[in-house]
Amino acid sequence: VRIKLLGTAAGGGFPQWNCACSNCSGLRDGSVRATARTQAQAAISFDGAHWSLLNASPDLRNQIERAPELAPHANGTSRNTPISSVVLTAADLDHVLGLLALREFQPLRIYSTPAVQQILRSNSFFRMLERLTGQSRWVDVLPEQSFSPEVPANGSSIHPIALGGKFPSYASGPMTAELDQAVMGLVIESGGKRLAYAPALPEAPDSLLQILESCDVIFIDGSFWSDDELQRSAANMPAAREIGHLPLSGNGGTLERLSGLKRPRKVLTHINNTNPILNEDSPENAQVRAAGWELGYDGWELDLKA
Amino acid sequence: VRIKLLGTAAGGGFPQWNCACSNCSGLRDGSVRATARTQAQAAISFDGAHWSLLNASPDLRNQIERAPELAPHANGTSRNTPISSVVLTAADLDHVLGLLALREFQPLRIYSTPAVQQILRSNSFFRMLERLTGQSRWVDVLPEQSFSPEVPANGSSIHPIALGGKFPSYASGPMTAELDQAVMGLVIESGGKRLAYAPALPEAPDSLLQILESCDVIFIDGSFWSDDELQRSAANMPAAREIGHLPLSGNGGTLERLSGLKRPRKVLTHINNTNPILNEDSPENAQVRAAGWELGYDGWELDLKA
Repeated sequence: VRIKLLGTAAGGGFPQWNCACSNCSGLRDGSVRATARTQAQAAISFDGAHWSLLNASPDLRNQIERAPELAPHANGTSRNTPISSVVLTAADLDHVLGLLALREFQPLRIYSTPAVQQILRSNSFFRMLERLTGQSRWVDVLPEQSFSPEVPANGSSIHPIALGGKFPSYASGPMTAELDQAVMGLVIESGGKRLAYAPALPEAPDSLLQILESCDVIFIDGSFWSDDELQRSAANMPAAREIGHLPLSGNGGTLERLSGLKRPRKVLTHINNTNPILNEDSPENAQVRAAGWELGYDGWELDLKA
Repeated sequence: VRIKLLGTAAGGGFPQWNCACSNCSGLRDGSVRATARTQAQAAISFDGAHWSLLNASPDLRNQIERAPELAPHANGTSRNTPISSVVLTAADLDHVLGLLALREFQPLRIYSTPAVQQILRSNSFFRMLERLTGQSRWVDVLPEQSFSPEVPANGSSIHPIALGGKFPSYASGPMTAELDQAVMGLVIESGGKRLAYAPALPEAPDSLLQILESCDVIFIDGSFWSDDELQRSAANMPAAREIGHLPLSGNGGTLERLSGLKRPRKVLTHINNTNPILNEDSPENAQVRAAGWELGYDGWELDLKA
C-alpha cells in the first residue's frame, strides 16, 4: 500500500491566517526554523492507480494540485481522476469541507459512519454533490467492520476503530447519540503490512495500544503539546482534551502512552499552529524525536511493500 | 482605494482537479502557455490598513497566506488580522465557502443581502462562526443602498447593484423568491474614483452599461467564451447562460455589449478552466486583448489614487 500525507496541520493550517503566535510570526518572517503545513489530509493506493482520500480537508484543491499522482490522465476522457473514493473518519469541518471542492460533477464513493453521512447529507451544501444520478455514492461504514474501497488486492482492507470523542459542535440530530460513530481511526492492511491513521485521538486506552503495536506505521494526532495550549494563546479557548485531542505531553499524554510501542514507525500529523514541536529548534521538538517520533510534513510518503 | 485580485478562476480553479481539457492538461505538462489561477477572490482597502474581502472563495486560506498585506501584525496581540469584513455578492459555494476558513474565533463583519444571510445562517456549518459572542456580525445590504464597511474616509462607499440571475441550486427557503437579492455587483467609490466588481454577470442591460461607463476600472465575469462551452467539455453539463454567466463571445455576449465602454480599464476575472482565453497563444486571447480587455491574474493589484 502507498500512503502520501498531503497535509499535516490541524484546522487553520500553519501559519494560521489570524495568528501571530511565535510559531506563525516566526515562520512568516523567517526567524523560526519551521515548515508551512496545510490542513491534515492523506491519500492511499493499494494498486498505485486508484487512490482513496482519507478525509477531505478544506485545502484539498490545492493539495491535489501539488500531488502529481492525483492529476487526471492527459490521455483520458476530458473529465477524469485517479481519485475514486473518500473515507471520512469524522464530521469535523477540517475533515469534510474538501468534499465540496470535489463537486465538479465527478462520480465518487464516500465511506463514512451512518451518523456522519446523516449530518452531512442533511446539509444543503451537499446537494451540490448530487446533481447527477450516481454522482456521489455514500457507503455505510461501522466500527469493527472491515471494508475495501477498491477491488481487494492482496487481501487489502480498511478496518475502522471507534476512538471515543464526540461529534463536532455544529452537528445536531438524532444520530449524534451514536457516539461510537463520531471519531474513527483506520487500520489499513495490504499484503501483510498494516498502517494506522488517527488524525484525531481523543484517548489512548490499552486496547488501542494493542492494535497500534500490530502496525508497521502509525499516523497519530499531534495537535497540541499541552492541554492548556489554546487557552494560553487567546481568550475564551477550550482545552485540548475538551475538543477531542489528547495532548502530546503530560500525564496520560500521547508520548507517555504511545512511545513504548516497539513495532511501528511513529509519525505525527494534524499538528496545530500553536504546538512548539513545529519549531525545529525547540526542546519539545527534540523531545518528540528522542522518544522515537517523526513529524509528518506535506508530501511525506511511503510505499509499504509486502 | 487599493484592490488586489487574490484569485481569478471560476469554481474549481485552473487547473481543475478532475479536468483533462486541453487547457488543464496543457498547463500541467507545460505544452500550453497559461498561468494557474485560484478561485475568484478580491480584497479592497480604503486606508491601506483595514481590508475587506469581496466574497470568500474556497481557496481563501491559501490566498491570504500568499498576500503579505493580509498577514497578522507580528507585534499585535497573539490573534489579529487586517481583515475586518467580508462583502458577499451571492450565496454560491465558490463565493462563500471561504467564510468557513475564517472560523478561528475571529470577529468579522459580514455584509450580504438578507436572503443570502438567511441561506447561509440556516446552514449548520455556519454555527462555527458563532461560537463567541460577537464573533460574526451580519449586516444587511440591499441593492441601491450604499454602505461603507469601514469608517468612511474620503467619502468612500460601496454601492450594490442587483444584476439579475438566480440563487444557487442548493438554496431553498422563502427568501429565494427575492430575486433581486440573488446576485449583486459592487460599485466601490473612494476619493472620486470608482471601480466595479462583478465576478458573475448574468446579463448586461443598458442601465448597467451606463453605470460601468462611470467607473475607472471594472472587474467583469470572464467565465466562458461561448454559451455551450461546458456542454462540449462533458456530458450533462449546463449552458453558460443557464448558470448565470453571459458568455464573452457571440450575439449579446460580454465583448459585444461592453467593449464599447470608453472610460474604464476593463479586467476579466472568474475565468473558467475551459475558457480558451486562458491559452495565451489562442486567437480568443488575442481577440479579448484587441477588444481592450485585460485578463486578471492572481496577485493583480491597483492603487487607485484620488
